[in-house]
Amino acid sequence: MKKLIHYASSFEAFRNGHLFSGNPPSLYEPMNYIMDLGGKRIRPALVYLGAEAAGLSHEQVQHLALAVETFHNFSLVHDDIMDEAPVRRGQPTVHLRWNLPTAILAGDNMLVESMKLIIQQQVHAAEIASLFLKTAGEVCNGQQMDMDFEQRSDVQEAEYLEMIRLKTAVLLGCSIGMGAMAAGADAAVSGSLYDFAVAAGLGFQLRDDYLDSFGDPAQTGKQPGGDILANKKTWLWIHAFNNLPETGRQELLHWKTIQDPARADEKVQAVKSLMHQTDADVQLARLSDDYYARAAAILEPLSINAASKKDLHELLDFLRDRTH
Amino acid sequence: MKKLIHYASSFEAFRNGHLFSGNPPSLYEPMNYIMDLGGKRIRPALVYLGAEAAGLSHEQVQHLALAVETFHNFSLVHDDIMDEAPVRRGQPTVHLRWNLPTAILAGDNMLVESMKLIIQQQVHAAEIASLFLKTAGEVCNGQQMDMDFEQRSDVQEAEYLEMIRLKTAVLLGCSIGMGAMAAGADAAVSGSLYDFAVAAGLGFQLRDDYLDSFGDPAQTGKQPGGDILANKKTWLWIHAFNNLPETGRQELLHWKTIQDPARADEKVQAVKSLMHQTDADVQLARLSDDYYARAAAILEPLSINAASKKDLHELLDFLRDRTH
Repeated sequence: MKKLIHYASSFEAFRNGHLFSGNPPSLYEPMNYIMDLGGKRIRPALVYLGAEAAGLSHEQVQHLALAVETFHNFSLVHDDIMDEAPVRRGQPTVHLRWNLPTAILAGDNMLVESMKLIIQQQVHAAEIASLFLKTAGEVCNGQQMDMDFEQRSDVQEAEYLEMIRLKTAVLLGCSIGMGAMAAGADAAVSGSLYDFAVAAGLGFQLRDDYLDSFGDPAQTGKQPGGDILANKKTWLWIHAFNNLPETGRQELLHWKTIQDPARADEKVQAVKSLMHQTDADVQLARLSDDYYARAAAILEPLSINAASKKDLHELLDFLRDRTH
Repeated sequence: MKKLIHYASSFEAFRNGHLFSGNPPSLYEPMNYIMDLGGKRIRPALVYLGAEAAGLSHEQVQHLALAVETFHNFSLVHDDIMDEAPVRRGQPTVHLRWNLPTAILAGDNMLVESMKLIIQQQVHAAEIASLFLKTAGEVCNGQQMDMDFEQRSDVQEAEYLEMIRLKTAVLLGCSIGMGAMAAGADAAVSGSLYDFAVAAGLGFQLRDDYLDSFGDPAQTGKQPGGDILANKKTWLWIHAFNNLPETGRQELLHWKTIQDPARADEKVQAVKSLMHQTDADVQLARLSDDYYARAAAILEPLSINAASKKDLHELLDFLRDRTH
């Protein structure tokens, strides 16, 4: 999507003028490191799209775009500690490149910096700060739910959807919502844009889960099964576990204990087969499509300028049509 | 100090009506746990004193008092992880009572909750939020400096003072400053109250360092030497290291390597003797007194009501005269 590339380069230009700095430099270096690792800058783009949809140039909301991207990266730094992840975007995670204390503190300070950027907002400041902090709390709740799920055997599909809504989708909603609020959009419009991005985010996340296990290697460019090998409790796993007969459940649990790399292929095939027995793959693909359709349906009747509506449709298509 | 007790009970009453709650409860339980461990609630008291000094009832700034106490407890939860501390106020630290991920996330969410309380402020909202976030960043900087110092052998006394100013004193300044701002105090008054509390905080922290090594057990109720046995790089240690001849320096470094509990007394006596050779104890006691005197000097000419000035003098006396 051409606009995304344009926005990303605009965002990088702004960010280069606002790199984190302070004393001691040892705290600010890891903060810039994680931000430098890149990413598609979808959240800044959503801030811009929200502002433009309601008639404000995206250059007026650069600080809000940097705020959400900073918050997002704070959550990556802390999540990587919690998940004991060694790699992020092909590079060592902050807690491995530096150490645990520095990673905790760099994350903390990014959370503080994100709020400093939020309070730079002059108009509609109270509603924007309120949405941002509500969302920040929800992201924490979602991460805790995710961790709790790993210890539980009775997770329901609906709980999983609520978890990913909180952990990832609401920050997308917050991004476009803040942009629209900054532009002075009616509450109904900013609320609908929020709902649009949350639905798109859920569709995207579920599609991601689907592709990880059932994607076509020729299209995704990688072997499926990462989540299965990592024993992640995804929607597919939960659905299979909740719908298999007792013997199937025991098989699913048994495969969790198999960590031998030599049996990786066998494990992926067996677990996928168990998932498929419950129609999990078909139902997940349908669920993802439902969320995309819901996002499109929210967008259609919205009173925003035609160019922005087209941009948002394109963004949705871009998210939906990804194969990897 | 009678007023402190009154304020602490007022604060607890407010807090009991505003306990943290949300979903999943597993995230909110540790947040309330750390807050329940108590403490003197000095920071809330400073918020109240700042408000009353400028003519506003302390009941109008309860949310700001809860904000600073929440922020303070966030920093305790994360610092305890970084310091690998097993005990806080006689109870297991959050990361031991629960686990590392929950402690990180509970701290993160307390930082978010503290900000939510800050933006409840209606009048003088921008300057209060700005002071709070500036301070929050400084506290992070101070903690990083503290960690960096452990890896360095060339720390100067002035750097140490700057570290404790950032790590602990500025939050006291922020507390009283926010209270005064909420009451609509002149910038000169809120600024002076801020400076007063920062100076008092530095005096207090240095007195704490002094008592830990050179306190009278009959008065402090405990054996001196905790910092020495923990190999902490305190002002006393830094001063001794920077002023001893080479042989003394080597002795000081040698004692750092002695961890045998059977030699604890010997280690404490030897290190205290090395510190005393450089006059560290006398100079630290004097430095602490200087900061208290500076705080009193800031207070004296201030245009605030007489009752509040008396309260603040009493607070200063209370902090200065503590023996443990």
